[in-house]
Amino acid sequence: MTNKYNNVYVENTSTIAGVTEGEGPLKKYFTYLCKDNYEEEKTFELAEANMLQRSVNNSIKDTKPELFLSGDLLNQLMPSNLVAKKLGVPYLGMYSACATSVESLIVASNFIDSGKFKSVLCSNSSHNCTAEKQFRYPNEYGGPKPIYSTHTSTGATSIILSNKKSPIKITSSTIGRVIDMGITDAFNMGAVMAPAAADTIYNHLTNLRQKPDYYDLILTGDLGIYGKEMLIDYMNKEYNLDIKKNYNDCGVMLYDLKTQQVNAGGSGPVCAPLVVYSYVMNKLKSGELKKVLICATGSLHSTTLVNQKISLPSIAHAISLETV
Amino acid sequence: MTNKYNNVYVENTSTIAGVTEGEGPLKKYFTYLCKDNYEEEKTFELAEANMLQRSVNNSIKDTKPELFLSGDLLNQLMPSNLVAKKLGVPYLGMYSACATSVESLIVASNFIDSGKFKSVLCSNSSHNCTAEKQFRYPNEYGGPKPIYSTHTSTGATSIILSNKKSPIKITSSTIGRVIDMGITDAFNMGAVMAPAAADTIYNHLTNLRQKPDYYDLILTGDLGIYGKEMLIDYMNKEYNLDIKKNYNDCGVMLYDLKTQQVNAGGSGPVCAPLVVYSYVMNKLKSGELKKVLICATGSLHSTTLVNQKISLPSIAHAISLETV
Repeated sequence: MTNKYNNVYVENTSTIAGVTEGEGPLKKYFTYLCKDNYEEEKTFELAEANMLQRSVNNSIKDTKPELFLSGDLLNQLMPSNLVAKKLGVPYLGMYSACATSVESLIVASNFIDSGKFKSVLCSNSSHNCTAEKQFRYPNEYGGPKPIYSTHTSTGATSIILSNKKSPIKITSSTIGRVIDMGITDAFNMGAVMAPAAADTIYNHLTNLRQKPDYYDLILTGDLGIYGKEMLIDYMNKEYNLDIKKNYNDCGVMLYDLKTQQVNAGGSGPVCAPLVVYSYVMNKLKSGELKKVLICATGSLHSTTLVNQKISLPSIAHAISLETV
Repeated sequence: MTNKYNNVYVENTSTIAGVTEGEGPLKKYFTYLCKDNYEEEKTFELAEANMLQRSVNNSIKDTKPELFLSGDLLNQLMPSNLVAKKLGVPYLGMYSACATSVESLIVASNFIDSGKFKSVLCSNSSHNCTAEKQFRYPNEYGGPKPIYSTHTSTGATSIILSNKKSPIKITSSTIGRVIDMGITDAFNMGAVMAPAAADTIYNHLTNLRQKPDYYDLILTGDLGIYGKEMLIDYMNKEYNLDIKKNYNDCGVMLYDLKTQQVNAGGSGPVCAPLVVYSYVMNKLKSGELKKVLICATGSLHSTTLVNQKISLPSIAHAISLETV
């Protein structure tokens, strides 16, 4: 389902980067670099909520937004709920795993474009120590991970969308369908999510009668280096579309994969927006990029699903950012 | 945040009731009564997904809806994700705990009223055996529960909202804020959620300049008998509003509290829509009710939050159903 928008602009963004993310190649674009994994809190979960709160505070300029849309990886969205409590504005919890950022942007864009809301704050967080503990085992356990696994990124991001004109506009979006290729290995997220990304990118381009080269840059959320190659192959073979020359993956861009120990790259709900709300916004503002398609990717699994040996459903949502 | 709608109608609903729910006073209004807790599946989680799938199948008449909004209580929305996979239409995961049904209705109403979507399917499920296992302890353990605790309802519900005229219209909605009164007892959900319900009902009525008697019936989602009394007191003392004569709670209506062992009443995302999409829709169609305000209530806690002894955040979202 692809929608077009006439009246939705990016008002402000804020990016809080974890320690590893703040040591990566995009360091200079982030709003704030965390000192450690705790940020002066007693638990990793409260540290994640602290980062999310900081991103919210940094993104709000004068008046509070009319609505808060937020999501993260923790069971029942613990960090989002705690931040919504402090913020005190109407709140809706969002969940599309690591595609949650774009789910929120799509809901916000529809709400603003219809004239029902003037400004909506969309936030996301993930924390390597909370996610690994919840989905796999605590990092302190030191379990080995395969090289094709991705590293859950640490940090928090916020963006305020508004009906007030600004240099960057949200022009269209495509809500994804759930795709399941029968993979049960929860380390192999790139392979799980690449077909969902392909389905959504293909539908987006087809519905809008666009070619891949309409965009200066097509970005997926967190496929990692192997998933990125799979998507390029898949788009070629399934849809006869060549995306290679203007395509990249946020999970690959967020780290220096040669020197940083993140295996195939980054993942987590914060991975895509950490790259988009910092580096990509900067390049859109400077005019180096004019049209960017963001396709955030999510693996919709839980420990229960993995333990019951059910194959992993995945989803991808896309949104188009263009300079005015 | 209160919105009004001109163009959003209820096309169809479907209610799948668990065993205890199907033995309650609303038995004759449900679409399907489950035979047992398994519904021929191997696990309780797959049974919940099975019920959700049945509610979806029963609600779709001819053509598939353009969008699927769904949410449940299980970590990472496992049943919703599995059903979204089979359905194959664009999907957004929703989470407001036991207020998720109304969150979905609000998002769908905004999407349809703006003209961007023609038909949206909103679904919810909960299952006593999956929720108790995840949030407290498996039922097989036989742990005692205090009399003020509520019973997570079993079942699944679906509703199709559409821009095609029908006898029942969605006229307005209010998105709630997170309220936290400092309670840390995860059994005492009625007390946790009553102030959130009060805040949302008060804001809804105030924003629309309505009195409580505008509605034939005001319903909360799952406060239970004690939470219901608290809300009546709270509305009186805090806002000087008397709701007693036209107010009830779905968690109280779903069971015969004298003979069924559910302590203070029902809870869970399916509790409110099991009552609203069956009994209330029936009374709206027959003309016995003309204007109903549904205020679904949710306790936004997780086991991590409870174990870390953080007080329980709660939320309530309201939607207004009126006969055309």
